[in-house]
Amino acid sequence: MEKTIAVLPGDGIGPEVTRAAVKVLKLIARRYQHEFNFSYGLIGGAAIDALDSPFPKETADACGTADAVLLGAVGGPKWDNNPSELRPEKGLLAIRKHFGLFANLRPVKAVPALLSASPLKEEKAAGVDLMIVRELTGGLYFGEKARTADDAYDTLVYSREEISRIVEQAFELARVRRGKVTSVDKANVLESSRLWREVVEEKKAAYPDVTVEHQLVDSCAMKLITDPSAFDVVVTENMFGDILSDEASVITGSLGMLPSASIRTDGFGLYEPVHGSGPDIAGKGIANPAAAILSAAMMLRYSFGMETEAAAIEEAVQTVLEDGCRTADLAEAGGRSLTTEEWTDKVIEQLDAEAVSEDIMFSYM
Amino acid sequence: MEKTIAVLPGDGIGPEVTRAAVKVLKLIARRYQHEFNFSYGLIGGAAIDALDSPFPKETADACGTADAVLLGAVGGPKWDNNPSELRPEKGLLAIRKHFGLFANLRPVKAVPALLSASPLKEEKAAGVDLMIVRELTGGLYFGEKARTADDAYDTLVYSREEISRIVEQAFELARVRRGKVTSVDKANVLESSRLWREVVEEKKAAYPDVTVEHQLVDSCAMKLITDPSAFDVVVTENMFGDILSDEASVITGSLGMLPSASIRTDGFGLYEPVHGSGPDIAGKGIANPAAAILSAAMMLRYSFGMETEAAAIEEAVQTVLEDGCRTADLAEAGGRSLTTEEWTDKVIEQLDAEAVSEDIMFSYM
Ligand SMILES: [Mg+2]
Ligand SMILES: [Mg+2]
Repeated sequence: MEKTIAVLPGDGIGPEVTRAAVKVLKLIARRYQHEFNFSYGLIGGAAIDALDSPFPKETADACGTADAVLLGAVGGPKWDNNPSELRPEKGLLAIRKHFGLFANLRPVKAVPALLSASPLKEEKAAGVDLMIVRELTGGLYFGEKARTADDAYDTLVYSREEISRIVEQAFELARVRRGKVTSVDKANVLESSRLWREVVEEKKAAYPDVTVEHQLVDSCAMKLITDPSAFDVVVTENMFGDILSDEASVITGSLGMLPSASIRTDGFGLYEPVHGSGPDIAGKGIANPAAAILSAAMMLRYSFGMETEAAAIEEAVQTVLEDGCRTADLAEAGGRSLTTEEWTDKVIEQLDAEAVSEDIMFSYM
Repeated sequence: MEKTIAVLPGDGIGPEVTRAAVKVLKLIARRYQHEFNFSYGLIGGAAIDALDSPFPKETADACGTADAVLLGAVGGPKWDNNPSELRPEKGLLAIRKHFGLFANLRPVKAVPALLSASPLKEEKAAGVDLMIVRELTGGLYFGEKARTADDAYDTLVYSREEISRIVEQAFELARVRRGKVTSVDKANVLESSRLWREVVEEKKAAYPDVTVEHQLVDSCAMKLITDPSAFDVVVTENMFGDILSDEASVITGSLGMLPSASIRTDGFGLYEPVHGSGPDIAGKGIANPAAAILSAAMMLRYSFGMETEAAAIEEAVQTVLEDGCRTADLAEAGGRSLTTEEWTDKVIEQLDAEAVSEDIMFSYM
């Protein structure tokens, strides 16, 4: 397959971790006979400095002609006092809005080798493998809002269509995962949640292979701690998803390793690490590139339909961690830590090793 | 002091645990020369059965002439299919609304003897001692809401005055605790949160002895897991408080032991365990009365200003648990469990022992 990938390195450690992910993608292209063309654009602080906008037209155009976008991270102290429109974070909001990326996918998967870093007891965190599907372009954050002298209000509004498309995404994802959807709402109190629940009930008929449960948001916030491995796909509206996805991100102790995707229905999507731009370690070559590399794997799976290739990357990352290879953020006291480049090369070696063992299997068949 | 306490046992294990709490309150009255008068009323399913309403006028009247209300629990399978207005839970909403109880206090304190039951690593859960102060009568749950064929909306609205009174409560509580308030909002997105933050900033001048920090709700949901002992008083609006207080309730592993209060500014308040009515164990005399007893302690502290008496109860409960006395829900495998009454008597013995050692101290002074 031939695919064009727009790479937006952004700020801080963004350039270092996207470089690592691109290196892995190039290896994947070679091994699996794909052609990946990379185009580069500016976003965030880097774009503000060069083009006076956190999401300039040049970048929008480059992304618009690509099949998917890989983003590093944005932000840093240099721009912290900028006016609201010239903040790096606005670049993220702008790109999601510009491309109508309404579904935010946040997988959280326990890495056995890293469970000691979880705030949860290891037996609670082990086996966690969930995906939060958050509606990203509607709800309370985008509804009508206003302020009078003594009052302020925000409006949580959803249309049947907005709910339908995100719920369908969740069902489709569950179908290729463990076949379970937990729909989270506050239907005992909110009108918007009652509509949400109604749409889920309507949609489920088309997915007889998927089990559906409804859970109230407060109860879900508890269960993410007491029994996180009970979840497969969790689908919810924007604000609940904001809170729950951040809560879920810390339960396995691998926050710095988490990838994310923001997609729409036609396969186009934006892939980026959950972590920030790490200004304190930027430029030192010691950032952990795992989240960016795993975001690239999500791109292969969700935008290009390359399941085998995505799984190969995920397996290689897991193996390298199990072998005890660590960047500084994860190194045990006294243990040697690898640079970003060294760690990436371990992943690449591992991918090569996996490929070799496949070749051997073939030659014996 | 003479005080009248309205007792609303409610459903399921409610009568058993309130009986235990009343027994402890009677001992406190005797030992500290108070006079507590107890009046009894129906609420929830029991009130539906007898008087066709989950919060009948008779109960409202009895509570209205009392200084505080002690409630057990409401609900059970018997009423699960009732129409919405005849659901036991409506009784809770009705009593809070009837008396304008706008401040919900949810303390979470680690019990060293129970840390093994926490989903968190013991070193994370140890030392947790926080209080979530949730606005209970405004916000998204009570704002204008409606439904059209294809849309639904809810409105999150707050007035400056609604925010002021709950924020003042939080500052007053922090003053007699560890002097720190974390105000939780989503001020980077919501107008109502920006007003909230403004009011907190205005109010803090009057409390120079209290440290204030602002935290975004998604970040707070993470920190409650990664660093829960960093919190003292957390104040937030209704919906965020709903989610965060339930999340916080599970971190120490003592969910069944948690008390709560719903108060207003004049000292009148409703005190109830966080746990439910436990229909599966109701009537067996094995329910854990700790949450009800600790709710009674909160009543002494917040409605009657009896700090010494409240602290004596809390200390006795802690000691009894440390001595290994457990009801069935907390008993270790193979360990003997006490009945509700036996466990309550242990607390009473302990209160007597504390009193005796005080008497001895006095006699030596
Ligand atoms: Mg967030
Ligand atoms: Mg709740």
